[in-house]
Amino acid sequence: MEDIRVEDYIEILNKLITEKDYKSIRMELSKLHPNDIAEILDEMNAEERIIIIRVMPKDQAADVFSYLSVQSQINLASSMNENLMKYIFNELYFDDKIDFLEDVPANFVRTLIAYAPVEERNMINQFLNYPENSAGSLMTIEYVDLRKNMTVKEALERVKKTGMDKETIYTCYVLDQTKRIEGIISLRKLVLSNTDEIIEDIMDKDFFHADAGDDQEEVAEIFKKYDLSALPVVDKESRLIGIITVDDIVDVIEQENTEDFEKMAAMAPSDEEYLEAGIFKLAKARIVWLLVLMISATFTGGIITHFEELLSTAVILTAFIPMLMDTGGNAGNQSSTLIIRGMALGQIERRDWRSVLWKEIRVSLIAGSILAIVNTLRMLIFAKASLMVTITVSLTLMCTVVLAKIIGGLLPIAAKALKLDPAIMAGPLITTIVDAVSLFIYFSIAGVLVL
Amino acid sequence: MEDIRVEDYIEILNKLITEKDYKSIRMELSKLHPNDIAEILDEMNAEERIIIIRVMPKDQAADVFSYLSVQSQINLASSMNENLMKYIFNELYFDDKIDFLEDVPANFVRTLIAYAPVEERNMINQFLNYPENSAGSLMTIEYVDLRKNMTVKEALERVKKTGMDKETIYTCYVLDQTKRIEGIISLRKLVLSNTDEIIEDIMDKDFFHADAGDDQEEVAEIFKKYDLSALPVVDKESRLIGIITVDDIVDVIEQENTEDFEKMAAMAPSDEEYLEAGIFKLAKARIVWLLVLMISATFTGGIITHFEELLSTAVILTAFIPMLMDTGGNAGNQSSTLIIRGMALGQIERRDWRSVLWKEIRVSLIAGSILAIVNTLRMLIFAKASLMVTITVSLTLMCTVVLAKIIGGLLPIAAKALKLDPAIMAGPLITTIVDAVSLFIYFSIAGVLVL
Repeated sequence: MEDIRVEDYIEILNKLITEKDYKSIRMELSKLHPNDIAEILDEMNAEERIIIIRVMPKDQAADVFSYLSVQSQINLASSMNENLMKYIFNELYFDDKIDFLEDVPANFVRTLIAYAPVEERNMINQFLNYPENSAGSLMTIEYVDLRKNMTVKEALERVKKTGMDKETIYTCYVLDQTKRIEGIISLRKLVLSNTDEIIEDIMDKDFFHADAGDDQEEVAEIFKKYDLSALPVVDKESRLIGIITVDDIVDVIEQENTEDFEKMAAMAPSDEEYLEAGIFKLAKARIVWLLVLMISATFTGGIITHFEELLSTAVILTAFIPMLMDTGGNAGNQSSTLIIRGMALGQIERRDWRSVLWKEIRVSLIAGSILAIVNTLRMLIFAKASLMVTITVSLTLMCTVVLAKIIGGLLPIAAKALKLDPAIMAGPLITTIVDAVSLFIYFSIAGVLVL
Repeated sequence: MEDIRVEDYIEILNKLITEKDYKSIRMELSKLHPNDIAEILDEMNAEERIIIIRVMPKDQAADVFSYLSVQSQINLASSMNENLMKYIFNELYFDDKIDFLEDVPANFVRTLIAYAPVEERNMINQFLNYPENSAGSLMTIEYVDLRKNMTVKEALERVKKTGMDKETIYTCYVLDQTKRIEGIISLRKLVLSNTDEIIEDIMDKDFFHADAGDDQEEVAEIFKKYDLSALPVVDKESRLIGIITVDDIVDVIEQENTEDFEKMAAMAPSDEEYLEAGIFKLAKARIVWLLVLMISATFTGGIITHFEELLSTAVILTAFIPMLMDTGGNAGNQSSTLIIRGMALGQIERRDWRSVLWKEIRVSLIAGSILAIVNTLRMLIFAKASLMVTITVSLTLMCTVVLAKIIGGLLPIAAKALKLDPAIMAGPLITTIVDAVSLFIYFSIAGVLVL
């Protein structure tokens, strides 16, 4: 199986649609992975999409549906006939069902829930109440449950009997009559053990679990740290209410990374894909920080105003402001990015602040010296500036890089100590702070050396 | 099982080491996950670390070893006696063995390889030759192989017999006599099928695979897209040479994200953890881009020099330079970050450049207008600037935001079209380009309105 070229398939399928050659469509699609078909459908228009979905075997349609973008799903759902929609909806895994319901317009949710079997409806309503980004919102209820007094043989028979509709059978849960977890056992262990062993003797009684209210980021941490493939979610009485599987965690990891990228670029984080997001939503996510940073940058302007006299006697000083500001900002961002990332991956803790400080001081002295030397040479050779101006600029450069790296290294740790999000608090603010600091140093040195 | 507090355990263990109470140490450690013990050991000094490793049962020591940081591993390896090192080395899964060998000093590699069984040594040398970050470097050789004429019952017996030392038994590979893959079958399917079915009839003949030379990022894409738990790696003759499992892919995803963070913050990407990296290595990763950006920022300074006359008649214009530069930089970074991230996740393709352009124009008009209005009000109320200066600044702000967002949106796509890395080429450069553009606009408008 190979990665496919979406454009080629769209062309082929469109041709077949025009020719009403549904048999060939079905044949072409039978060769593809559901996710590839979904990718193709996402690029088609609504009319073509519904034709393709109707032509596919129902089972395949249901498979493909779970991979479609939210926009395409909603779109399709509103143009599909009731029977097909009902079939597809009930074929979805429970967690995909919940994901879909969380995204469709409110008036449509009730229609869809009515499609579910009666005994599932309460459960759906309960799951819809878990907050977004909580462990509860990631759960599925399709797991294999065993009893501790079963033999391995009986357990394997139960897996065989009930496993078909379960999202994973690779971890099984040993429950008592009140659904409290007494242990877990992997299918690996079941298959590798003697068939007459008793589950209680070989199950793991020590296992990780999450509460439904836990943040998905913490849950992802546990998965990553302990290489898990599934994690049980329990209520206050330790009763199993659902499980989380590793394939959803991969999505969580990417989502959390995206949020960090967005925060560090001074944006409000968003779940929505760029191409699907409305322009007002995009503008709203960006405007708050742009305003805050614009206002705070005026303080930097205030520093310039304060030294206006100095500047009017030596206008040439102005020419180096962009370079000093940019280099300071870049130097600070380098450090803060490494620290924020290191903290996100659990490699850097609050207690490490002394090592960070000491490391940044030494690194910044190296980097600052090199920059100052290169700048001095450059200015002596190319610029028409006086020796004093050259010294002022290079000295400022050196001090700015050192301070920028110290601020960039410590601010994220300080943010965390104050229980603030390092990515939000430290990322966007570093440039503003470093700008002000570097200009202040610049004019202070210039006041002594140049005047 | 709960997440543990490393500090508490270090204290307890240090006390027990002083008291030479090895029995209690063993008991304390028996309650912990190997990864937790590794975390504790990473924080201890070399002397304590070797004591703890020696006290542990050998099996546990081997488990813990694979989770340790590279620094601790190398450290331990050089102070451990030969027998223990040999035992631990041979207990490691094949891919962990290779990871370890890739990190130890060259002179030590030969000693370690000599510890391996003779029949494995050739394989080790071959695997060490796969380039870093290639599919080959992620592989393990511990997989279960089946024959297509087996029954399910025979297959399950083979899994049971050979599965104990395999990294995963959840995907099994059906090979012919020359090791060519004829199909794959999941343990799930084996367990859920009737015991007398023939493997050939139920195995998947359509499956994804990678070549040993493929980039790990591409491999991770396939895992994410198709929710795989393992992927076979084949040679040119389609013979199976190893498999990649999903737990290693989670690490690859985080590593690739870290690299993107580093590139976008103008650093050379590095595999090493911050706290473990030497200061010269850190300085080296940062200095190149700092130099490039410093030099290019002098062109921005050149624009100022060009308008020196204008500035000396209206020094007040200087006070708004930081605000304009910062806001432009922030606006551009917001857009480029969203686009670079969207491309990394496969949500935005080259063909989407028109949608991106149209979206950024509209979003930037909204954001730019709000910023310009707020700025006008602020300057009218608080600043001592003339009306003409106010209009100049607000108009520049508007134009800068629009241009910054267009550049930020399109530059990453252009970089990709030129087969350059969007994160490297677009991230750090946006600020510099936007700075120059915004100052040019500023002085051009000022030349008309203010003079």
